[in-house]
Amino acid sequence: MIHAFSGGVGGAKLARGLADVVPPQDLTLVVNTGDDFDYLGLRIMPDFDSVVYAVSGLNDEERGWGRSGETWRCKETLGKLGVDTWFSLGDKDLALHLLRRSLLDGGATVTDAATEIAQGLGITCRVVPMTNHPVRTMVVTDEGELSFQDYFVRRRCEPRVRAFRFAGANRGTPSPAWFQSLASGASSGLVLCPSNPFVSIDPILSLPAVRGLLMRREFPVVAVSPLVGGAAVKGPLAKMLRELGLDCDPLAIAAHYADFLDGIVIDQRDAAYEAELRRRGLRIAVCDTMMADRDVSRRLARVSLDLLTECGARRAA
Amino acid sequence: MIHAFSGGVGGAKLARGLADVVPPQDLTLVVNTGDDFDYLGLRIMPDFDSVVYAVSGLNDEERGWGRSGETWRCKETLGKLGVDTWFSLGDKDLALHLLRRSLLDGGATVTDAATEIAQGLGITCRVVPMTNHPVRTMVVTDEGELSFQDYFVRRRCEPRVRAFRFAGANRGTPSPAWFQSLASGASSGLVLCPSNPFVSIDPILSLPAVRGLLMRREFPVVAVSPLVGGAAVKGPLAKMLRELGLDCDPLAIAAHYADFLDGIVIDQRDAAYEAELRRRGLRIAVCDTMMADRDVSRRLARVSLDLLTECGARRAA
Repeated sequence: MIHAFSGGVGGAKLARGLADVVPPQDLTLVVNTGDDFDYLGLRIMPDFDSVVYAVSGLNDEERGWGRSGETWRCKETLGKLGVDTWFSLGDKDLALHLLRRSLLDGGATVTDAATEIAQGLGITCRVVPMTNHPVRTMVVTDEGELSFQDYFVRRRCEPRVRAFRFAGANRGTPSPAWFQSLASGASSGLVLCPSNPFVSIDPILSLPAVRGLLMRREFPVVAVSPLVGGAAVKGPLAKMLRELGLDCDPLAIAAHYADFLDGIVIDQRDAAYEAELRRRGLRIAVCDTMMADRDVSRRLARVSLDLLTECGARRAA
Repeated sequence: MIHAFSGGVGGAKLARGLADVVPPQDLTLVVNTGDDFDYLGLRIMPDFDSVVYAVSGLNDEERGWGRSGETWRCKETLGKLGVDTWFSLGDKDLALHLLRRSLLDGGATVTDAATEIAQGLGITCRVVPMTNHPVRTMVVTDEGELSFQDYFVRRRCEPRVRAFRFAGANRGTPSPAWFQSLASGASSGLVLCPSNPFVSIDPILSLPAVRGLLMRREFPVVAVSPLVGGAAVKGPLAKMLRELGLDCDPLAIAAHYADFLDGIVIDQRDAAYEAELRRRGLRIAVCDTMMADRDVSRRLARVSLDLLTECGARRAA
């Protein structure tokens, strides 16, 4: 069994690559839920939805979020009714949220609902929310503490970040649907997809049982660097690193995961960092990490899995 | 103040006619909520929505229900996700249901939410749900008791009806937003719009306080016959009358409301019944009641109001 942690768009592309190359029964994708929120009575799960749309091929490649062929009649009408439509809900996307709401209202756990939705989209590998427990990512900024959506959507990532807090995490248990197989020794390894470490991967790591497991793990862990040439492919990562006084390079990423990282995949544009990363005891793979199309995603997935195998062999030795 | 009771489509057309000819501050439209139900976590209010769409001019004249210019992307997507889409939710219509759900979740009464929605659609007269209390119309058929939506949508009105039951009515109080002004003596009269008496008007009458008020009323009441030439303009009324062993004519309608009816507007095609209706003590108006367009709706509204005035004068005398 291969496990992978992922946030939204960037991570979702690698998730699709992994789903393309790993037999479905051997892949478990674990998705950040720290960005989840309620809007108009619907439970919005931005990262989970990004992953299932990417894996099922329904995502809009051009816009980078949401569904392809999307229409916005409902949103336009909400606006005319005087509703604050700060969050864009597409007409097709709405169906997924309505289904999820009705499943949750019927007593399903977040994981149950997620499983049914992924299956409804024709996905055969496991796609699991990190936890059934409410965990909310809070961004501590120079304007005070903002919810992730406030920071990311309303304020367009403008406030300077100081720290991150995962409200509810200390009481959160990882969803058994993924954690059992990782904790039981059945896993070949864990891939940290190229999502923002602070707001996409760290929420998963903030669950006490998860960090505990990683510290005593019996499986290899590799990360795919979300940076290319000192910039994030998408999103506020580079800005966050600078505001936190960190460098925008693979060394910062490796340092962030240092407690449990065995290997890191870096972009060929960052090949100069290879030597220093090796010096720090990591195994390295270098390749094109800009997933401009599905082929690149698949190749990056294979490279990540090969590195995982290499790290696994080294750990066994 | 003019009051009117209305169900869905047919009644909604007259509701719009009334809104066209009565100053908004002088008109209170009271709408049946016996058909209301929850679907995918949304509160669907079919008759209330028909009335507000008709009064705001957003209704689809051709289809006879729902919004004009409607699209169905969400419904199609729900179907692909395996959801039973027995009830058609349009993309624009969805906005109204989402707004209503969020208002109700925020603690608004059904009336509060209705008021906000009507205002959001630009409506200036009062449009009020009959009650804030859950009342559900049950249709007693030869296949047992069915909820209204089961009978009307799923079973397409095929089962033979025997009776009707309004679950919850005996504990329901009429919404103060309309009842106060009718009970206080401030009303010039009540128009029963040409909706199905059994499943659109009777639910309103089933509220004990309403029937009690009508029995001791100090205002005139006129009905607009929902039948034309022995047939319903739309819907299962004629079939229901036959199955209940009643005739499909204005006499049956007048008899149904006999306890409190002062006048009835009948279609010119039913002019032959005028004499018998007068013999029963009712005042009559005869005109075109097939509201094929807005002009006919307005004329019918004026005829109804004139008859109301006539009945009011007679009562005063």
